[in-house]
Amino acid sequence: MIVGLIGATGYSGAELVRLLSQHPKVSKMMLSSVSFEGQHIEDIYPNFFGRVCGRLLKPEEVIAASDVVFSALPHAVGEPFAQACMERGVNYIDLSADFRFDDDEDTFSAWYGKGYAYPEIHKKSIYGLVEMNRRQIKELAAKGALIIANPGCYPTGASLGVFPALAKGLVLQEPQAAIIVNAVTGITGGGREPARSYHYPECADSVCPYKVGAHRHTPEIARNIAAMASMYNNAPSGSGHTPALIFTPHLAPINRGILSTIYIPLSDGWRVTPDETSKKTIRPPSKEIEEKAAKIHALYADFYKNEPFVRVLPMGHTAATNRVRQSNYCDISVHLDRGGSTLIIASAIDNMLKGASGQAVQNMNIIFGFDETEGLQAIPALF
Amino acid sequence: MIVGLIGATGYSGAELVRLLSQHPKVSKMMLSSVSFEGQHIEDIYPNFFGRVCGRLLKPEEVIAASDVVFSALPHAVGEPFAQACMERGVNYIDLSADFRFDDDEDTFSAWYGKGYAYPEIHKKSIYGLVEMNRRQIKELAAKGALIIANPGCYPTGASLGVFPALAKGLVLQEPQAAIIVNAVTGITGGGREPARSYHYPECADSVCPYKVGAHRHTPEIARNIAAMASMYNNAPSGSGHTPALIFTPHLAPINRGILSTIYIPLSDGWRVTPDETSKKTIRPPSKEIEEKAAKIHALYADFYKNEPFVRVLPMGHTAATNRVRQSNYCDISVHLDRGGSTLIIASAIDNMLKGASGQAVQNMNIIFGFDETEGLQAIPALF
Amino acid sequence: MIVGLIGATGYSGAELVRLLSQHPKVSKMMLSSVSFEGQHIEDIYPNFFGRVCGRLLKPEEVIAASDVVFSALPHAVGEPFAQACMERGVNYIDLSADFRFDDDEDTFSAWYGKGYAYPEIHKKSIYGLVEMNRRQIKELAAKGALIIANPGCYPTGASLGVFPALAKGLVLQEPQAAIIVNAVTGITGGGREPARSYHYPECADSVCPYKVGAHRHTPEIARNIAAMASMYNNAPSGSGHTPALIFTPHLAPINRGILSTIYIPLSDGWRVTPDETSKKTIRPPSKEIEEKAAKIHALYADFYKNEPFVRVLPMGHTAATNRVRQSNYCDISVHLDRGGSTLIIASAIDNMLKGASGQAVQNMNIIFGFDETEGLQAIPALF
Amino acid sequence: MIVGLIGATGYSGAELVRLLSQHPKVSKMMLSSVSFEGQHIEDIYPNFFGRVCGRLLKPEEVIAASDVVFSALPHAVGEPFAQACMERGVNYIDLSADFRFDDDEDTFSAWYGKGYAYPEIHKKSIYGLVEMNRRQIKELAAKGALIIANPGCYPTGASLGVFPALAKGLVLQEPQAAIIVNAVTGITGGGREPARSYHYPECADSVCPYKVGAHRHTPEIARNIAAMASMYNNAPSGSGHTPALIFTPHLAPINRGILSTIYIPLSDGWRVTPDETSKKTIRPPSKEIEEKAAKIHALYADFYKNEPFVRVLPMGHTAATNRVRQSNYCDISVHLDRGGSTLIIASAIDNMLKGASGQAVQNMNIIFGFDETEGLQAIPALF
Repeated sequence: MIVGLIGATGYSGAELVRLLSQHPKVSKMMLSSVSFEGQHIEDIYPNFFGRVCGRLLKPEEVIAASDVVFSALPHAVGEPFAQACMERGVNYIDLSADFRFDDDEDTFSAWYGKGYAYPEIHKKSIYGLVEMNRRQIKELAAKGALIIANPGCYPTGASLGVFPALAKGLVLQEPQAAIIVNAVTGITGGGREPARSYHYPECADSVCPYKVGAHRHTPEIARNIAAMASMYNNAPSGSGHTPALIFTPHLAPINRGILSTIYIPLSDGWRVTPDETSKKTIRPPSKEIEEKAAKIHALYADFYKNEPFVRVLPMGHTAATNRVRQSNYCDISVHLDRGGSTLIIASAIDNMLKGASGQAVQNMNIIFGFDETEGLQAIPALF
Repeated sequence: MIVGLIGATGYSGAELVRLLSQHPKVSKMMLSSVSFEGQHIEDIYPNFFGRVCGRLLKPEEVIAASDVVFSALPHAVGEPFAQACMERGVNYIDLSADFRFDDDEDTFSAWYGKGYAYPEIHKKSIYGLVEMNRRQIKELAAKGALIIANPGCYPTGASLGVFPALAKGLVLQEPQAAIIVNAVTGITGGGREPARSYHYPECADSVCPYKVGAHRHTPEIARNIAAMASMYNNAPSGSGHTPALIFTPHLAPINRGILSTIYIPLSDGWRVTPDETSKKTIRPPSKEIEEKAAKIHALYADFYKNEPFVRVLPMGHTAATNRVRQSNYCDISVHLDRGGSTLIIASAIDNMLKGASGQAVQNMNIIFGFDETEGLQAIPALF
Repeated sequence: MIVGLIGATGYSGAELVRLLSQHPKVSKMMLSSVSFEGQHIEDIYPNFFGRVCGRLLKPEEVIAASDVVFSALPHAVGEPFAQACMERGVNYIDLSADFRFDDDEDTFSAWYGKGYAYPEIHKKSIYGLVEMNRRQIKELAAKGALIIANPGCYPTGASLGVFPALAKGLVLQEPQAAIIVNAVTGITGGGREPARSYHYPECADSVCPYKVGAHRHTPEIARNIAAMASMYNNAPSGSGHTPALIFTPHLAPINRGILSTIYIPLSDGWRVTPDETSKKTIRPPSKEIEEKAAKIHALYADFYKNEPFVRVLPMGHTAATNRVRQSNYCDISVHLDRGGSTLIIASAIDNMLKGASGQAVQNMNIIFGFDETEGLQAIPALF
Repeated sequence: MIVGLIGATGYSGAELVRLLSQHPKVSKMMLSSVSFEGQHIEDIYPNFFGRVCGRLLKPEEVIAASDVVFSALPHAVGEPFAQACMERGVNYIDLSADFRFDDDEDTFSAWYGKGYAYPEIHKKSIYGLVEMNRRQIKELAAKGALIIANPGCYPTGASLGVFPALAKGLVLQEPQAAIIVNAVTGITGGGREPARSYHYPECADSVCPYKVGAHRHTPEIARNIAAMASMYNNAPSGSGHTPALIFTPHLAPINRGILSTIYIPLSDGWRVTPDETSKKTIRPPSKEIEEKAAKIHALYADFYKNEPFVRVLPMGHTAATNRVRQSNYCDISVHLDRGGSTLIIASAIDNMLKGASGQAVQNMNIIFGFDETEGLQAIPALF
């Protein structure tokens, strides 16, 4: 199979190059880069010397010759290439946000500053969060060429952490109840272009939040929560039964990884009612709390029992970004607040893999009927 | 003034050595270490070569000769030294948790596994969070030798971030409303003893939560919130009008610093009511949200306007640990959730200084009537 | 093939687990650990959850059931296991130093404090630096079970950087001429046991040399240089025609990797003679220097042209540890001192792979006649 | 005293701001920045909030009102400002290379691509490596306004490591004997402007050399060595009795610090002659080697016995960048090669302080007759 890749020299592009060049079903890769057209990929990424080489072509050349096209372009520039692929009947897997809001152009344009130039192709696209939409992706792929809107990095980690709680009825359904996603990303999340925020001396040895209350991944996470809540509540999305979302991204001095710490207010049946004593003296978690946590853990483990890339860690373990580094795993650990009111989920992904290029390859595998783990079997090293 | 220090070779001890040896009012330091008695401090901390030198003595020798004694011992071993200081009429500034729960031995023993051996001296102690108890510290000091329970690192950053919201009536008073403190610490927070969790290859390039729902600083933060709520509500502590606390500590690969991201549900007067439209389309923060944030920012700035070590950053800036590194500052930035239901405060401190040794020196300055910033005037470098 | 591994829970053991569990020729792994016998590997390395699992056995159980045994034990404890393997006729690949000085027990005991308990088995062993001894390894393997003395991490990077210069006659042959290897290692080089030197707050954000003039890898590098010099000089080892070695290891805050910067005094034919002008004004490198560097580069490229894991980088590129991270490559870049007297080679390896576990697998592949790159084909990611 | 600073927003500018705003003799600072004229320094460096504030002026305004002017501009743009200062009779302390080669315009222009526009002012300047030129600086300052050519960061650490060896006659005087300086710098060495090489994901977790054989600091170090050799040899500079210099800079993921590992071939009287045995078996350092090292250590300690900012560490200790971080110290440790032919010196400085801004303030103190340590007394913290 010939695989095309446009936007090959950004970080998620380079990760796609690395993954696809080792994928057993890929016979040839064709790479394109606007910034470096005519140069060789191994000169831009010298880690590829002797293993991946090839001249960077025009996007048109790539599209014309490929069986599937990945796009790792920035937001809001890729629609024409998607259109070209649809015309040729070639699947298009897009790592930007351009097709993530196909039902909701208003939200897309409110956050990305641009509407749709080719509204028709948005009907052929599907949001590629596999654990949410696997069946629908397969169905759509059966009908012909499609567009995969590969999810954002934060939305992947956050949504996978929240879904079981929604599906199992654990979430408090009250107007003021909000799910809080406090997430920390590595610096590769900022991409390859040098900038002050990612300049080593200014981000090393420091942790800070950024774009508080205003990050573009907020509507994507909120939409996923609403969709999942709706599916399991039999309630229409936007009916008011959807928990609100508060999302705060942070930057930490790690290369790869997103750790999402997710606070989910528990529904009445699950919430522990504090007794009178506990109000006076503040004690460590009680046995009751620990047992309730174990029950919720079992529900999480059950929800993901057939998922190849989601690992619900045993009780007592805690998700950490170094345990999924350079792998396609999402690790989830289940915890309960000391008081028993709030479920605390920690979810860890490699932002470049499960949060971007790995998930894109996972989507390719599904579309073409390959084993879903093909080319994604790397075992993470701890160090 | 002769200053004694017991527990001089741990990290907060070493920081006290560094600060006090440059303090204009300190004429002599006497150092003690159980682990390294008889050795010289500059052999254990070679960064001190040529600047600080001295043989490590027995605690008794230090107490006998000092005008004030700092204790940077581990928890639950220092009471006899405090007792000895009280007998000699010497002020005792304790960096452990031993005197932080003087009114509540039950809570202390529930978390630290030990009751009080000398109950009487706990009546002479006061919790040394200066911005909360400055007046009381001065009053108590006027009466004779006292014990300062120097606050924990997390409780300092968290409490300073929450206090103005409590004082200004911003916090929702409902049973299920909880204040969430999501905090990230640097690795010095784990102390000087080598351990797997702090072994470079296992904590570098990784972020993870730890002791979720079960960290010992939880009751200290909760108690501070309750005390502050009580003061401003004219409601007795534990009356049910105290917001619950959820606290999740994390470890990140930085040497120093604690970033606390604090989620505070807004009271009715402050909460923005979402209009119908916003329920359908998820938009970036509205002008109304931004204006409300600016008003809250003004309240925070007002609350701390006379504090020498709390900097409420201008709107548009965000607290970051590298901006307070090696200083005694607590930086606070004020944000609002996109939906307007929740106040988001970011607070940054250097865990070794404002979170430990710097605050201890600040307490010494207050007790002795020195300028509160004496010996603590270092300006942070960004890198 | 059933592969046994004793010492599975140290860092190089864990890397062997990771590599071998993905090796196409390995049907089963049996793991042993003295420290954690009876526990499960995935509890000690949670990154392995869902991928590698197994109870840690006694060494005897492992040896009894395996077709090949890897030993990742500390130095000076493995001889009895090697002896047991030889008795059973099972190949033994040893990552410790125990068999690296088989011809020279005096040197071994001078540095490792212990002689040989089983002198006979040292006759069945061979030093497994593949690029030096491939032919000999194959020949010995053809005769029956053998012991591979897998090279040390520093000796691998240093020797590969020096060999072409020796082979091509570039090295000055004078009594006072010394080859200087200035090497920097990542912290995994110190192993899994927590210690002050590898405690995050004391090694992060710092660079320092250690064991200057006294590191155990010194005799191993020196011996390799002597052997290679002897081979190409037709001069007996120790004849005085061997260049002296000066080796200084350093610690830097990276997880993996060794960068060796190697200074090789050029022989008369290669050394550029400074003209009179250059003595007065110090100028940037002249065209003559650049041309000479290019010629030497060509010799290096030629020397390694058939090696699957040594990449001589194109002129203008510089070896860096992140370009070989998590791969089995040794990257080499060729430079010349401004004055033209000294060849400067930079060599980069991943200390855990080419410097330890990867090279051990490479040796296994050779012994069993597999493709040498089997199980070692990971392409490094830059970040 | 009113202190002016042009180029205030680069990293060494910001460090000067930090140091000078705490300097007891400085009553007022006036800051200039070409890039940010009209803005406020605390908006660009938010770590300064509440401590340093001020609008960034034009250079002319600063020069007109100051008693001394520091310039932290890039190379080759500052001469007109120096000229203006000389006209006004105001001392000018320049952190660029513009005045470091006053006797040798050819070398300057060969490396910096530009000759002198104001040759006259180069006669009023002096190279401000205090430990080399203190007396001359004082003499020149006594005659009127002068220009200080503040040394480069690498040259400072390297030269201080080499000087005692030259002064005490330890260095081999043979044509082919070269002093090798293998140095590692932190990323602040690259300045404030974001660039690929300093982009966190590309330099974190990696070590590499750069500009091998071609770094601009080469002629500055070589010139210092020649000058010192000449002074102690009574031999004219350039007479051939000057040891050659080989200098290789490296980048490591630390914020601050330069570690120079310096290889100095020992002169005949000092070199240990290897006996016959040692040629066969390679042994750890002998007692003879250790004794010789101790003797050389004593010479180094003697050479710097009156220097306030050079600490020759006791035998057994090793220089490390974290032991001098945020201080003006140069730490030096003395080692001997195992074979006894080569002296190995490790020197550690904070590149931003002793390597730039700290040394500049030290020069100011000397010029104005202040205590040389004024404003530079910070004790380094280890973490």
